[in-house]
Amino acid sequence: MNKRIITISREFGSGGHTIGKTVAEELGIAFYDQELLEHIAEETGFSREFIKSAAEDSTANYSLLFNMVVNRSFQLRNEPTPADTVFFAQMKIIQNIAEQEECVIVGRCSDYILRDRKDCLNVFIYADAEDREKRIIERYGENDKPVRKRIADKDSRRRTYYSHYTDRSWGMPQNYHLCLNSSALGEKSCVSIVCRLFQESRNGDV
Amino acid sequence: MNKRIITISREFGSGGHTIGKTVAEELGIAFYDQELLEHIAEETGFSREFIKSAAEDSTANYSLLFNMVVNRSFQLRNEPTPADTVFFAQMKIIQNIAEQEECVIVGRCSDYILRDRKDCLNVFIYADAEDREKRIIERYGENDKPVRKRIADKDSRRRTYYSHYTDRSWGMPQNYHLCLNSSALGEKSCVSIVCRLFQESRNGDV
Repeated sequence: MNKRIITISREFGSGGHTIGKTVAEELGIAFYDQELLEHIAEETGFSREFIKSAAEDSTANYSLLFNMVVNRSFQLRNEPTPADTVFFAQMKIIQNIAEQEECVIVGRCSDYILRDRKDCLNVFIYADAEDREKRIIERYGENDKPVRKRIADKDSRRRTYYSHYTDRSWGMPQNYHLCLNSSALGEKSCVSIVCRLFQESRNGDV
Repeated sequence: MNKRIITISREFGSGGHTIGKTVAEELGIAFYDQELLEHIAEETGFSREFIKSAAEDSTANYSLLFNMVVNRSFQLRNEPTPADTVFFAQMKIIQNIAEQEECVIVGRCSDYILRDRKDCLNVFIYADAEDREKRIIERYGENDKPVRKRIADKDSRRRTYYSHYTDRSWGMPQNYHLCLNSSALGEKSCVSIVCRLFQESRNGDV
């Protein structure tokens, strides 16, 4: 089956964003990470800051979203929260993008949102703790919170958000087609494995 | 770092055994799966059948093994069970093999037993439920137990055995360098990704 879409889920500080961006550049296809924020802001009227925080907000209305997303039933039982509105808009935007063009999409439950498509390659990037700490300090700098605490908080928010809007556990291999440890393999090898699989699928080898 | 050892952990029915065997053949290195049973039988005097069942036996003496394996302290607090004796012998055998030759080792907590070595590539192979069912029926035939139940029981025994003898959860990406879904990627692609990484590490690229 020809793969047209690559979804990248990633641990904070694993290099997943960079790997996704490089894959898109090497394959010459579109890249969506922060770029999605613009689309969602346009669709919902919320600010980029609010959308960013909502993406890791676990206070959304689970029963409503479970009803919407899993059972595909759109009958409102309760008022959606603003976070629900963001999720619902991003679901629609990601589905539209996937329909229109070959691309790499980072995060935002895109593996789950596109789960019924056969043309997605779902990748999870993770890394060793020491490496993640180093990358976060290099990229975002120090702040008052110890880096380990920043990682634990971010992981916890991503895990909660993902399980909140899906019927799955974040970071379990079964959600993805391949999971790559960027510390052990190096960013370059991760990029090359994903690019090669995408290209082989175009040739009908996968 | 030059990788000399490939450990393959795998879900029952995922094709992990076949993938490991093909990798070993393509790389021209030794392959250990059932072959380990002979060594353990020789070392312990137990039958192959007992060793096979002990490898998924969760009644072993956890506190003793935790003491032995994790704290590296070999002071006996309690009598080891026969399953403990098997695990301890297999630990020694796997460590010796890893010292002596390039090889592929399937299962038996080898990723954990060799965790301090820098020359191991740890791989986890998993697959979609439908594919696992099909492979199990093809390979082992039908029996009185529904195939879904056979899979659930085997997974549960492997999970319990692994967490019993290690301080980790079986099948979590963080235990491995890469996790490959053989249903999505195909056995051929899995073999080629692992072989390429092994060869690149020889060239100093990983």
